[in-house]
Amino acid sequence: MGEERTEAWWGRRAWALLSAVRARAPLVQCITNLVSMDIAANALTAAGASPAMLHCIREIPDFTPRCHAVYINVGTLSEDWLPSMRAAASAGRPWVLDPVAAAASQFRMEACLELLALRPAVVRGNASEILALAARSDSSPTFKGVDSSHDSGEVLQAAKALARSSGTVVAVSGAVDFITDGEQVISASNGVAMMQKITATGCAVTALIAAFVGADPSDALAAAACALAIFGLAGEIGMESAKGPASLRMHLIDALYGLDEQTVTSGVKIALLP
Amino acid sequence: MGEERTEAWWGRRAWALLSAVRARAPLVQCITNLVSMDIAANALTAAGASPAMLHCIREIPDFTPRCHAVYINVGTLSEDWLPSMRAAASAGRPWVLDPVAAAASQFRMEACLELLALRPAVVRGNASEILALAARSDSSPTFKGVDSSHDSGEVLQAAKALARSSGTVVAVSGAVDFITDGEQVISASNGVAMMQKITATGCAVTALIAAFVGADPSDALAAAACALAIFGLAGEIGMESAKGPASLRMHLIDALYGLDEQTVTSGVKIALLP
Amino acid sequence: MGEERTEAWWGRRAWALLSAVRARAPLVQCITNLVSMDIAANALTAAGASPAMLHCIREIPDFTPRCHAVYINVGTLSEDWLPSMRAAASAGRPWVLDPVAAAASQFRMEACLELLALRPAVVRGNASEILALAARSDSSPTFKGVDSSHDSGEVLQAAKALARSSGTVVAVSGAVDFITDGEQVISASNGVAMMQKITATGCAVTALIAAFVGADPSDALAAAACALAIFGLAGEIGMESAKGPASLRMHLIDALYGLDEQTVTSGVKIALLP
Repeated sequence: MGEERTEAWWGRRAWALLSAVRARAPLVQCITNLVSMDIAANALTAAGASPAMLHCIREIPDFTPRCHAVYINVGTLSEDWLPSMRAAASAGRPWVLDPVAAAASQFRMEACLELLALRPAVVRGNASEILALAARSDSSPTFKGVDSSHDSGEVLQAAKALARSSGTVVAVSGAVDFITDGEQVISASNGVAMMQKITATGCAVTALIAAFVGADPSDALAAAACALAIFGLAGEIGMESAKGPASLRMHLIDALYGLDEQTVTSGVKIALLP
Repeated sequence: MGEERTEAWWGRRAWALLSAVRARAPLVQCITNLVSMDIAANALTAAGASPAMLHCIREIPDFTPRCHAVYINVGTLSEDWLPSMRAAASAGRPWVLDPVAAAASQFRMEACLELLALRPAVVRGNASEILALAARSDSSPTFKGVDSSHDSGEVLQAAKALARSSGTVVAVSGAVDFITDGEQVISASNGVAMMQKITATGCAVTALIAAFVGADPSDALAAAACALAIFGLAGEIGMESAKGPASLRMHLIDALYGLDEQTVTSGVKIALLP
Repeated sequence: MGEERTEAWWGRRAWALLSAVRARAPLVQCITNLVSMDIAANALTAAGASPAMLHCIREIPDFTPRCHAVYINVGTLSEDWLPSMRAAASAGRPWVLDPVAAAASQFRMEACLELLALRPAVVRGNASEILALAARSDSSPTFKGVDSSHDSGEVLQAAKALARSSGTVVAVSGAVDFITDGEQVISASNGVAMMQKITATGCAVTALIAAFVGADPSDALAAAACALAIFGLAGEIGMESAKGPASLRMHLIDALYGLDEQTVTSGVKIALLP
C-alpha cells in the first residue's frame, strides 16, 4: 500500500493487468453453462486469454493442474457436471465462481454452498445471488429474511459478511459494481444499462475475472475490480456504435480486443470506498 | 368476438401482447437444444422476457412452478434430458413445444408424441415436422402416407387434425405461417427468406411464442400468431441493414428490442382465414 | 490428373465444390463441442449445407445413414458422448474428425486414437494436435519426443506419417494450411490472422470440410483444401469490414454466404507442393 489508490492509480493497475493477460495468455478452464459458452470464450479470447471448455471429470487430473485459472458457473447445473466442478475447484488452481440464480432450487443452492466451501478466489453475482448466498452461509440471523428490495447498504453488508465467512473476494454486479474482501470495499462504475439485455454478459465478465486472476493471482480483489471495470469500459465504447443488444454484444467484444493504454488508464472508474 | 378482426385489430393485439411481455418480463424456462440456446435466450431478452435455461430434473419441482411459461425443444434430444422435459411439461405451467426434426428417428418421434400427450399450449414446427406428427397422432388413414411435396392444403389439413387430436394450437412456419386451434386458421405473413439461413431462428421464435403465452395465457392462438408476426417483422426491419445471414441475425435481434407501437401496429400481417 | 493443377485450376475446383454444396445441400450430422455449435451450424448453413446437431446414440441407427457426411469434434468430450461418436463414425458415411486439444488428457488422446482407427476421410487440426497424434499413432521413434517449437518441416513430416499410418487425409491449419494424403502435399494460403481470435473458427472450418466431402466424396484431399481456402477467403473478405474479432465473425459468415464465382476462382490460393 503506502501509495494512495487514486482513480489514476487504478487506471494504471487495470492496464497492467490487461497487459499481463495479453502477454501471458492465461489458460482458463471453463466449466460454464451452455448458454454462455460462446460469449464467454470469445470475451476471453478477445482479452488475450486462452479459454478451454473442458468439463469431463476424466480429464481434470491431467488438464486442470496445467491451467492458470478455473472458471465455474452453475447456470445450467446438472448432476453429471457437479462432480467435475468439485474436482476442478479442488485441483489447486485459483478459481472463480459464478453462482447464477443461486436460489433457483435447493439443489442449486446446496451446490453453490458446497463449491463456496472449496474456497474460490472470487465469487461474482448480482445482488439477489449474493444476498441469497449470504443468507445461507452466514450463521448470524441478520440475512435470514432477505427480501427482494435489494437495498444497496444491505447488499454491501451481505457481500462483506459472505467474503469474511467464506474467505473469498465477493463481487456484486449492478449499476455500480462492488468488490470486497470483507474489509475493503472497492466500487467499479463502468458499463451501460443495455449490457443487461445481452444474455450471459455476467457469465462473460466472471470468466474475465478468472483470466485476470490467472494472469496475476497475487491480488484477487484488484483483479476482480479491474476485470469488471474493463469489461464495462468495453461496453461503454461498444455502446457508441450499438443500435440494440446484439450489435452492442459485437461492438463490446471488438472494443475489448482493441483497448489501448490511453483508453484504459483514463477510462476505468474504480475507487476504494472510505 | 363481436369485433371484426381486421389487420389493424391484429396490429393492436400484437402490440398489446409485446407490451405485456415487456411489462411483465415473463420468466420462461427453456429446455432447448444446445445450438439454439444463445439465439433463443437473446431473442427472449430482447423482447423483454426473462429466459432461464434450467434443465436439471432436480431443480424442476422448485423452479418450474415459479415460471410464467416453459419452452421445450427436442433439437438435441438425449435420453438424459427427456425426463426433465416430461417433468417440466407436467408442472402445471403453460408450455410450448418445438418438435425439431420430429421424424429424424423413432426415438425422437416417440418422445414428441409423448410430450404432445402432455398438452402443450402451442406446437410450432415446419411443414415436414407438422405433417410427420399429424401422420402419427391421427388415427385416420389420411396422413399415413406423407410425402415430401408439402402441398399447402394438405399441410393445413394436417395442422388442423393435429390441433384437434392433441387439443393444442398448432403453428406451421413457412413463407406464410399458419396457426390453428383445429377450427380457426390464422395466417401470419411477416418475415424474409434469409431468416432460413440463420441457424435456430425457428427455435428462437418458438421461445418467443412461449414468452407471449406466458405474458397472456388466455389466448394461445393469438399469442402464437402475434409472436410469429412480430419476429418476422423484426426480420424484415433487420433485412434493411443486413448483408448476409450473420448480420441479419444481429439486426433482427436489435430490431426486436427496438420495436415501437407504430411499427408493430402497421407492420404485422395477420389475418383470419375464411 | 493429366491436367496441370495450377492455381486457376484449383480456383475452378473450389468453385465447383462450393456450387455442389449449394446445389445438394448435404445433410451433415455434427457431434461437436458445445462452444462451437452456433458458429459451426451457421457456417454450414451459410455455405449451403444442412447441419443437424444430433448426438443421441438412440438416434444414430435411424438418422446417420441418411446423412451425406458426419462431423465429429472432441472439444468438449465426455464419457456419455464418446459412444455416439464411435457409432456415428461407424455408420458407413464419410466423416471428418477435429481432434481439438488432443493432448489435453490421456482420456482424450485415447478417444482420438480410437476414432482415428475408424478411418475418417479427413482429420484437421493445428500443428500441436497433429504432432501429438502423429507421435502416438506412429510406431517409429521419430515423433516420440515432440516439443512445442513446431518446426514446419517437422509438422509436415508428422502430417504425412499420420496420413499414411491412418489412411486418412490430414489437414494442418496455420498461417498456411497443409493438406496431405501421405504422398501429395497441398498448401492453402487464404485467411487472416485475426480469425485465430474468434473462438471455434477451426471447428467451423472442419465442419465445412465435412460438407465438402459430403457434396463430393470422391476426392477428400481436394475437398479439404478447397474448404480451407474458401473459409479463409471469406475471412479475408470479412476482414475488409471488420473492426475486431466479433465483427470479423459476422462479416466472415456473411461473406461465405455471398461468395460468387469470380471471387472464388480468382481468390483461392491453393498449390500442390513439389
